[in-house]
Amino acid sequence: MASSSDNARPLIHFTPQNGWMNDPNGPWYDAKDDIWHLYFQYTPNDTTGLSDLHWGHASSRDLSTWEDHGSIIAPDEPGQGIFSGSVVVDQNNTSGFFNDSVDPLQRAVAIYTLHSAEAQVQEVAYSTDGGYTFYKYENNPVLEVNSTQFRDPKVFWHEPSNHWVMVVSKSQEFKIQIYGSNDLKNWVFHSDFAAGLYGFQYECPGLIEVPVEGTDKKKWVMFLAINPGMPLGGSANQYFIGEFDGYKFVPDDTQTRIHDYGKDYYAFQTFSDTDEKDGVLGVSWASNWQYARRVPTDPWRGSTGVVRNHTLAKVPANPQSELLTLIQTPVIGSSIKSERIFETKNHTLNTDSPISVTPNKTGVFDIELTFTVSAEENQKKRINLSILSNVQDGKQEDIKLGYDANVEAFYVDRSIDNEFNKDPYFTDKISAIAEPLETDEDLKTFRLRAIIDKNIVEVFLNDGVSAITNTFFMSEGLLPESLELSASSDDIYTVDLTVDELVPRE
Amino acid sequence: MASSSDNARPLIHFTPQNGWMNDPNGPWYDAKDDIWHLYFQYTPNDTTGLSDLHWGHASSRDLSTWEDHGSIIAPDEPGQGIFSGSVVVDQNNTSGFFNDSVDPLQRAVAIYTLHSAEAQVQEVAYSTDGGYTFYKYENNPVLEVNSTQFRDPKVFWHEPSNHWVMVVSKSQEFKIQIYGSNDLKNWVFHSDFAAGLYGFQYECPGLIEVPVEGTDKKKWVMFLAINPGMPLGGSANQYFIGEFDGYKFVPDDTQTRIHDYGKDYYAFQTFSDTDEKDGVLGVSWASNWQYARRVPTDPWRGSTGVVRNHTLAKVPANPQSELLTLIQTPVIGSSIKSERIFETKNHTLNTDSPISVTPNKTGVFDIELTFTVSAEENQKKRINLSILSNVQDGKQEDIKLGYDANVEAFYVDRSIDNEFNKDPYFTDKISAIAEPLETDEDLKTFRLRAIIDKNIVEVFLNDGVSAITNTFFMSEGLLPESLELSASSDDIYTVDLTVDELVPRE
Repeated sequence: MASSSDNARPLIHFTPQNGWMNDPNGPWYDAKDDIWHLYFQYTPNDTTGLSDLHWGHASSRDLSTWEDHGSIIAPDEPGQGIFSGSVVVDQNNTSGFFNDSVDPLQRAVAIYTLHSAEAQVQEVAYSTDGGYTFYKYENNPVLEVNSTQFRDPKVFWHEPSNHWVMVVSKSQEFKIQIYGSNDLKNWVFHSDFAAGLYGFQYECPGLIEVPVEGTDKKKWVMFLAINPGMPLGGSANQYFIGEFDGYKFVPDDTQTRIHDYGKDYYAFQTFSDTDEKDGVLGVSWASNWQYARRVPTDPWRGSTGVVRNHTLAKVPANPQSELLTLIQTPVIGSSIKSERIFETKNHTLNTDSPISVTPNKTGVFDIELTFTVSAEENQKKRINLSILSNVQDGKQEDIKLGYDANVEAFYVDRSIDNEFNKDPYFTDKISAIAEPLETDEDLKTFRLRAIIDKNIVEVFLNDGVSAITNTFFMSEGLLPESLELSASSDDIYTVDLTVDELVPRE
Repeated sequence: MASSSDNARPLIHFTPQNGWMNDPNGPWYDAKDDIWHLYFQYTPNDTTGLSDLHWGHASSRDLSTWEDHGSIIAPDEPGQGIFSGSVVVDQNNTSGFFNDSVDPLQRAVAIYTLHSAEAQVQEVAYSTDGGYTFYKYENNPVLEVNSTQFRDPKVFWHEPSNHWVMVVSKSQEFKIQIYGSNDLKNWVFHSDFAAGLYGFQYECPGLIEVPVEGTDKKKWVMFLAINPGMPLGGSANQYFIGEFDGYKFVPDDTQTRIHDYGKDYYAFQTFSDTDEKDGVLGVSWASNWQYARRVPTDPWRGSTGVVRNHTLAKVPANPQSELLTLIQTPVIGSSIKSERIFETKNHTLNTDSPISVTPNKTGVFDIELTFTVSAEENQKKRINLSILSNVQDGKQEDIKLGYDANVEAFYVDRSIDNEFNKDPYFTDKISAIAEPLETDEDLKTFRLRAIIDKNIVEVFLNDGVSAITNTFFMSEGLLPESLELSASSDDIYTVDLTVDELVPRE
């Protein structure tokens, strides 16, 4: 049943078959069956969300192509919701939920928030079939503090202190709380963490050790989602780098870092129980509460971001300071084939000779652009990559991304002249900065990677030191099809450009 | 000489007669002659800025109408710039620059950054004529630390510790430094302060005591400008609330607050030597480095924000937390007359009966809108105030502001279908949140004040708990002229609306 909406469905970003999706929940890796699990905030029967939220479930062999299993944990009563949380593998059966019939690598325990009008409390549920069915613990809740704004537990095993750790948000008190447990059932409060920008509330915290590139060290990173009230409008994620002893997180500095400068990167969650070699993998919700319930997709609303691998590295923030920064690398799984459709090297881009690339299959692109720009001042010094739709009834729409050497910032411009784009919160232009990858006398080199997937663009600057994730909504029947790379002044840009089309492997 | 650009010049926002302006510098009050002085980063002979920056000078009797005196401090050598700084009144002649011929209330000393390719150092200059002429100190610089990124000193007298205090930015090290002096010439380092978001660099710090409403207490507020790399794109200001003992600033919490959510509020500076009764007055640059050098005004480029009075008050950030927050109130001076051209009370706004207001004089508005909205969910529940231009060649342009009750955020939408608006950094939509002023069973009340001045809109939410300042650029010959207030669903908004036209007093 091919419909226009099936054609418009992102290829490598997970979307539910039907209904509403928001935050990703409890992503984990089943090492026995070599399968990735993803749960998510889900309303099966409508696309406006927020009523009787369930956990939905999807699984994947490669983090790019997902099988949707539909609802997996449902509220017992109307008005309740199974809100966000996490999944851990309780290998040693600390919880007592398992017997020997369940492989230690498949002893999945979900820790989630049960929401009602009266309170938000933390509950657990366990699976004896490797994450496809969950049974709620009979003595739930496992943690309650008499609050209506207490949610989104992220749990992990902390080996040095030999206990489970939960980070959870006292949402409207702007606090991330840290609890400890030996059995996932009894929790003891250890410490508070508060930092970053104020917004309306804090949500979806995370805490994980991330390797520092070029060393054998790791640092702890605290993730924190704020919604609404971020300066870019609505929802966004921040992070902090520091030390964690199992009880208290102490950031190295009092500053805060932005995880992704786009308007569609929220409620980031890391995968648990991954193999060391797979790195620190995480996934976000690719929307913004300012317009999530209005975006024109059907029969689903909501998408994840592409799964990203995270490391830390010292990168220049300016010519005088290097900052430890998350390096984000998108994961393109083995179910997806990259077909090289364009390649050029050392091409001098003039105003009268833009590069045009017309692909022929899915219109899902993985683009890498490295460019060198002269340091000489020129108010017109801008490079622009337009992603153009097919033409229908004489209409063609585009989104743009690029770099302005005078403003010294990358931009993504999703302004399209159609009805949805008039939404007063669907901000058209987003930007982010990155220092040059290399500076050679009067030349500066930058790199930009863009993954375009039907209605989502994820831009990674300078090999992932910064990212911009934005959805975009072309008119019905229009989808990204071709590219044009242009310069607004002559002889200033030398480019290497590769364009891969992403197609499902047969 | 009436020209279209004279007609387009803002009325109550200062703009230089000719040339380029960026940061406001050294605003102070001369209590002897009852006159306000404002200096500013200035390039007299072109409108693209950044070359051989001077201090320009303007004066005002009422903070709304300014006389432009042109350049007042110029660099001595090509390639140097007189960068941002402050002015203090050295009443007791601690500096030794003055004799009895200069009234103690007019002993103005400017402390500014001398910029060159080799270094940024702090210099002083003094005025014996009440701020109209400055003489550079012969033994400049007064503070140098062997850095090319060390600038924007804000100096004030700290009575309890009986010395001058300077806050100054180690810009690319993300540090605000605090120095002390007895004579404005010899400076001793005391402490560093670092907090907030990382961007490319920190600039234009400020530190001042602000009264807490409803108490006889004051708290110290540290201001900090970040450019570029703010999440909303480019330049913006943050602030921190805490304690200061004359040597070290200690914030009350580790969070950071946004001063203004618009894209055109940067390099905020407070007035020095004001009378207690005048409050804490401050002024910003109403532009953004992402497009400041391209905005279509002529023969000037650059404008200040309206002078604002600042207090602190505890206001709800959400239903469970109150936060100490800057309350910002625009100052409309006595040279400006407010003429009431529209007033309605308890008006039920339906979709089929928008309110239209057509003024007849300057097209400079001061609008106050109080509205009550039902708490019932309705995806279409939005109120919109369009500011419409005159009609020329059949073309009319508008900007919009309003509130969406489902998204629970105020918006300003400056998207206009003309060439300048295609600038990839001139973001169209900006939003900010504010909790209801009052909640009465199923009704919520909000208030919005908007000052529209030719090409600048400043929006104050709920009596100043949050603000959004944005420039906008209608096509040549078009300027704000009339208003339309509309609702997108029926019977949900009850409004009080007043519209004052602002006109120069004869």
